[in-house]
Amino acid sequence: MLFSVTMDLLFKERGDQGGEFKTMHITYHTIDLKLKHPFRISRSVSETRKNVIVEIDGGIGEAAPSPYYGDNAETVIECLEKVKDQIGDDPFQIETVLSNLNDKISGNYPAKAAIDMALYDLIGKRLNIPVHKLFGLDGKKQLVTSFTIGIDTPDKMKEKTREAKDFLVYKVKVGVENDIEMVKAVREVTDAKIRVDANAGWKDAEEALTKIDQLKKYKIEFVEQPIDPNDKEGLLKIKRESEIPIFIDEHLMTSKDIPGFVGLCDGINIKLAKCGGIREALRMIHVARAHGLQVMIGCMIESSVGIAAAAQLGSLADYLDLDSNLLISNDPYEGMTVKGGMIYLSDKPGLGIIPKNM
Amino acid sequence: MLFSVTMDLLFKERGDQGGEFKTMHITYHTIDLKLKHPFRISRSVSETRKNVIVEIDGGIGEAAPSPYYGDNAETVIECLEKVKDQIGDDPFQIETVLSNLNDKISGNYPAKAAIDMALYDLIGKRLNIPVHKLFGLDGKKQLVTSFTIGIDTPDKMKEKTREAKDFLVYKVKVGVENDIEMVKAVREVTDAKIRVDANAGWKDAEEALTKIDQLKKYKIEFVEQPIDPNDKEGLLKIKRESEIPIFIDEHLMTSKDIPGFVGLCDGINIKLAKCGGIREALRMIHVARAHGLQVMIGCMIESSVGIAAAAQLGSLADYLDLDSNLLISNDPYEGMTVKGGMIYLSDKPGLGIIPKNM
Repeated sequence: MLFSVTMDLLFKERGDQGGEFKTMHITYHTIDLKLKHPFRISRSVSETRKNVIVEIDGGIGEAAPSPYYGDNAETVIECLEKVKDQIGDDPFQIETVLSNLNDKISGNYPAKAAIDMALYDLIGKRLNIPVHKLFGLDGKKQLVTSFTIGIDTPDKMKEKTREAKDFLVYKVKVGVENDIEMVKAVREVTDAKIRVDANAGWKDAEEALTKIDQLKKYKIEFVEQPIDPNDKEGLLKIKRESEIPIFIDEHLMTSKDIPGFVGLCDGINIKLAKCGGIREALRMIHVARAHGLQVMIGCMIESSVGIAAAAQLGSLADYLDLDSNLLISNDPYEGMTVKGGMIYLSDKPGLGIIPKNM
Repeated sequence: MLFSVTMDLLFKERGDQGGEFKTMHITYHTIDLKLKHPFRISRSVSETRKNVIVEIDGGIGEAAPSPYYGDNAETVIECLEKVKDQIGDDPFQIETVLSNLNDKISGNYPAKAAIDMALYDLIGKRLNIPVHKLFGLDGKKQLVTSFTIGIDTPDKMKEKTREAKDFLVYKVKVGVENDIEMVKAVREVTDAKIRVDANAGWKDAEEALTKIDQLKKYKIEFVEQPIDPNDKEGLLKIKRESEIPIFIDEHLMTSKDIPGFVGLCDGINIKLAKCGGIREALRMIHVARAHGLQVMIGCMIESSVGIAAAAQLGSLADYLDLDSNLLISNDPYEGMTVKGGMIYLSDKPGLGIIPKNM
C-alpha cells in the first residue's frame, strides 16, 4: 500500500489528478533536414526537407509535411497556430483532443501527427514508461527495417546498397524507364530481400504487370504502389494477375480509406504523417487485420523523432520501412538504435527521444 | 527529476522494470448470480448464472459464459487450466499474451475475456491509473445505459419498467408471438427511449419487416438481431426496407466478423465475453468506425466486474447496454455507480472494482 500512497502524493504534486490543470502549451520550431544523397522517387527529387518539431509541456513530436499531399512547413505552422489553444489541460484526454482536432480541421495530418506524438511522449513521461509499453506491446521484439535506395544511375545504386550493407531488406524506388536495370544492379551486390516502390510511376496495369513480370527473377518481396491509386480497375487487374504481393500507400490516409482498397492489394503502408499519428495508425492496423491485409509501417523524410514514434507500434506490423533518419546527415535527435538492419527501441519513458550532441 | 527517480525506485522494488519477473499466477472461483426476475429472451430463460471470477496477481476479471455459444463455467475452467502457465511474467506484455492464447485456443472467449480484464486491471493498478485513462479516454463523459426488460406478461413488463423508472432507455426483449403487445405495454408506462431486441426470434425478413412496421408507432430507437444472423439475404432485405435502424449481435464475435455484416446493418453490439476482452473490443470499435457502423457495447449476465471492464471503453460507443449487474440480486462486487440511468466510472486504479460488503 505504500506504493499506492506514494504514487498518489506524487501525482497530486504534479496536478495530474484532481482539478488543478493548466492549459497545455504548444511550442514549435522548424528543422532543415539534409539528405545524404538527393532522394529521387518516380515523381520528384529532394535534397532537403523542412519539418516542424512540436513540443507540448515536455512531450515532443514531428510534423513531416509532404508537398505531394499539399503540406509544407507553413501549412503545418498555420494549423498549429489555429489549434494551439484547443488542446486542453490533460494529455490523458488524447481521444477527446484528437477527435476535436479532426472535427475542426480537415487534412493537415502532419500537424495532427506531431500533436499526437507529443501527447503520447508526454503521457509516457508522466507514467514513466515507454509508449510501446503503454500500448501493451513487446519492446524487445525484433524489428527489421528496410533501407531505401532512391532512384539513381545503376552504378550509384550499387554504391548506395554497398554503403548500407548491414541491412536485411532494401526498398528500391522504381517507376521510371530503366527501373529493371536499376533493380538488377542492386540485386548484383546483395542477396538480401528487395522490395520495390513505384510510387504510382507505372502508367497502367499493363505496364505494371509487364514490369512485375520482368522483376520476378530478382526475387522481389512485394511491389508498392504500382499505379495511380485512383485506378481501381487497374489495381484489381494487377492484384489478380501479379505473382508478387501488392501494397498500397499513396492516398491511403486513414482507417476510413482502407475498406475502399480491400480486394485490390495484399497490404497497406501506414505512415503517421499521412494518418495523423500513433492513435490513428493503431486504428488502421486493426482495420487492416480485420480484412486480412498485411501491414507495413513507413515514413516520410523525418528525423529520429517521427521514426521513434512510428517504431513504437513496430511489433504490430509485418514490415517496417523506418529508415529516413538514416538517410539524412543532420538528424538533431536520437531515438532508437539501428544495428544490423534492426531497430532497437529505447526503454526510456515516452518516445525515448533525446537531442543529439552535435 | 525527483519524480522520475522516485518512480524508478518504486518500479525497481516491484520488479516491473529490469529482469526480475515472476510468472503471473492465475486463480479463479465460480460465482452463482441470481436474477431478480427470471430473464426470458426469445430462445431461453435463466434464473441463475454461474460465472467465473479470475484473479491474476491482484488483477480481477470475469468470465460470463453463455450456453448459446457453447460455453459454461466448466469450459471456462478447463480453458483456464490449459493456459495458466502461459501468461508469462509481465501484464504489460498483454499483446503477446493474448495473441498467443488466440493462436493456441480457439473460441473460449469468456475465459479469454476474463484474462484480458484481469491483466488490464493489473496494469492499471501498477500504473495507479484507471483503465479508461490508460486508453486516453474521458472518464467523465456521460454514459447512458439502457435497462433491459425481459419477456414476461405485459403487466409484469409494465411493473418491471416502473421499478426501473430512473432509466433513460429501455431495451425490450421481443421475438415472440405477442411482442407488439409487450412493447405497447412498456410504452404505456414510459416516455423514455425504447430499443427492442428480438434475439433472432423472428423467422424471416417478412416477419421482421411486418413486426418493425407495427412497432414504428411506439417510437423505437433501433431493432437488435431481428432474424438468424446466417440469413444474410434476409438481413439485406431488412436493412433496405426497415425504417428503424438495425443492429447485429448474435454470432458477431470478433473484429474479423465485422466485414461480413457491412451493408447488412446500421450498427453492431460488442460484448467482452463474445470477443475475448477489452483489447479485442477496441479493435472492433475501430473496424466498425472505419465502415461507418454504429457501436453498442453490451453484456451477458455478469457482475460488476465484467460491467466495469466494458464500461471503460464506454465513451467510444454510441449506445451502452451495460445493466446486467442491476438485474442480479447478489452482485459480489462494486465497480461503477449507476444513477439516473447513467454510469459513472470509478476513478480508482485499474477497473475500479472492490468486493461488496455483503
